Amino acid sequence: MKFIIQRDKLLQSVQDVLKAVSTRTTIPILTGIKLVTSEEGVTLTGSDSDISIESFIPSEEDGTINVEVIQPGSVVLQARFFSEIIKKLPMDTVEIEVGSHNMTVIRSGKSEFNLNGLDAEEYPLLPQIEEENVFRISADLIKNIIRQTVFAVSTSETRPILTGVNWQLENSELICTATDSHRLALRKAKVESDNNLSCNVVIPGKSLSELSKILDDTNELIDIVVTENQVLFKAKNILFFSRLLDGNYPDTSRLIPSESKTTITVTTKDFLQAIDRASLLAREGRNNVVKFNTFETGLLEISSNSPEVGKVVEQVQSTSVDGEELKISFSAKYMMDALKALEGTEIVVNFTGAMRPFVIKALNDDNMLQLILPVRTY
Amino acid sequence: MKFIIQRDKLLQSVQDVLKAVSTRTTIPILTGIKLVTSEEGVTLTGSDSDISIESFIPSEEDGTINVEVIQPGSVVLQARFFSEIIKKLPMDTVEIEVGSHNMTVIRSGKSEFNLNGLDAEEYPLLPQIEEENVFRISADLIKNIIRQTVFAVSTSETRPILTGVNWQLENSELICTATDSHRLALRKAKVESDNNLSCNVVIPGKSLSELSKILDDTNELIDIVVTENQVLFKAKNILFFSRLLDGNYPDTSRLIPSESKTTITVTTKDFLQAIDRASLLAREGRNNVVKFNTFETGLLEISSNSPEVGKVVEQVQSTSVDGEELKISFSAKYMMDALKALEGTEIVVNFTGAMRPFVIKALNDDNMLQLILPVRTY
Repeated sequence: MKFIIQRDKLLQSVQDVLKAVSTRTTIPILTGIKLVTSEEGVTLTGSDSDISIESFIPSEEDGTINVEVIQPGSVVLQARFFSEIIKKLPMDTVEIEVGSHNMTVIRSGKSEFNLNGLDAEEYPLLPQIEEENVFRISADLIKNIIRQTVFAVSTSETRPILTGVNWQLENSELICTATDSHRLALRKAKVESDNNLSCNVVIPGKSLSELSKILDDTNELIDIVVTENQVLFKAKNILFFSRLLDGNYPDTSRLIPSESKTTITVTTKDFLQAIDRASLLAREGRNNVVKFNTFETGLLEISSNSPEVGKVVEQVQSTSVDGEELKISFSAKYMMDALKALEGTEIVVNFTGAMRPFVIKALNDDNMLQLILPVRTY
Repeated sequence: MKFIIQRDKLLQSVQDVLKAVSTRTTIPILTGIKLVTSEEGVTLTGSDSDISIESFIPSEEDGTINVEVIQPGSVVLQARFFSEIIKKLPMDTVEIEVGSHNMTVIRSGKSEFNLNGLDAEEYPLLPQIEEENVFRISADLIKNIIRQTVFAVSTSETRPILTGVNWQLENSELICTATDSHRLALRKAKVESDNNLSCNVVIPGKSLSELSKILDDTNELIDIVVTENQVLFKAKNILFFSRLLDGNYPDTSRLIPSESKTTITVTTKDFLQAIDRASLLAREGRNNVVKFNTFETGLLEISSNSPEVGKVVEQVQSTSVDGEELKISFSAKYMMDALKALEGTEIVVNFTGAMRPFVIKALNDDNMLQLILPVRTY
């Protein structure tokens, strides 16, 4: 294998596939990046066997030459060293040549590296996915969906299924749900799909976080292909594979109350900042819990008390308070996570009593819902 | 005590004195910040008993009112909570009022904190320093001196005196020296001093690093007062006290070779980047060691070899090479630290043989010198 490549193009691809490479793998070859060169261009692959990322650099793109392929071939190079080297090379172009025993020479200007490569034949093959059932979402919407749900997945392995986000597609509507059993985030979106496709899968939260870092904030349509145990996200020159979680996701729809006994509407920013301050002292107590009171006047009060440090009382004027007066306690952290995920300047919170889960939505937006279980303190 | 203060002024002072506050102190009251209010303004103090910082906020400054003092007094508040609260309060002004048992109320808009305070009488007194012997350096020059020397102090406590920087003042010339016994950094500066002052002290590296963060990058003259066991840096509204290290600093002057067998002149940036790349593979080996060769043609070669990973050869064209051809090995990290500390686009390195310390200076600049001991590999 021998080729000359634009360093910035190579670096971008290396940094993309690097997101799938783990240093703590039990399969030594997976600490490497696979390079395969053909006349069409260079393909890089990184994998930790849960996530696999393939990035393609076309030889020619929009009339610009990215790669000059002198001899096709393949090699696997240590990911950590390879990425550091490409980042620091002195010139705009890099020459990469594989000799006998996979010994690989990397040249740029007066800099020359010789790296011990591995045989690309020994690199695990990526899952073969039949592209029968495809649906499409724009890259920026995928990033939003991930940002608004993935924070609510469980970080504990006691119920592994809850470490993923449930993606349910039916009648061209995608419903994404994440819960750690103390709070829940739900996001709906309209999607384009072939043959009125339906599916119901659980994608690991970690995979979605990595995917979000790789996607650009554009309206480029991403093809999504779901199989029994894999999901594939196809962008222009990037393939992102993730395994799916085994098992049935719990039915969360019955958790979400439909009626309301107390409804408040409040400016998101004021409410968020007041809770942030009230939680400063709560951090010392258990689980960041703050107390919340509504008053008939429309005043909201958030307070917390830590006997050793002191106490704090925050007041926020709501836009409206309807229904019963309420005293409730909840985790300030969960509330702040939920408020940051919601879009819009005003939010509506529907309570059905001090011991019941409550629902937070952006005003006039039914595509997104945050639910939090209260804490028993009163 | 009761006063109303501009929040941004208070926050700046809190963040300055916070740099002296350690959470790992054996004296509980030192986890707090002392506030003392008089008609003139508010004084904040933080200390970990090695470093003490006092910041004064004048009631009035340049015609602007910073503080409205309603009742003078004092209190000590938990530093961590106090700084977080001041940072997040909603309005531009803050009211602070101390009631009975040092219970302190902090109000801003509709936010109200009650913090358990401590008696300011129990806070240790700062060292009393007689201002007899004063010399002066501009803030930006102090920051430079610190940046160019402090990285070379020892991080090991086996020889505690080497964890500090030696400041020697004689005939209005200050010589600052730091060494960890593998490399040495030396910086000279002209200073203004009273009565042709002379002194010879060792200031802890950590104190200098914190001082550097507090000083602004201006040409404001800082008064420096040295006593037997303390040094005081006096800026306009800040006092920075540090204890001095006990013991005699080693005489390092005889370490610095005066003659040279091989002299090279090279562009700092090219040399630094080549060493950075050569060290990428060296990191795997012991102590980041790279090999360095000069050639009669003026070519410099930096190389390293890590049998498991591969090898790298970097070539740099020097401006000039004079004297014997040389093969030497040294720590890439020490060399990069030294090159980053030196100013100027070209550097001169004077070698006196493969086993002898060598000296690096910026071209035509004798105020600064970096010395590195080679490593035996050839």
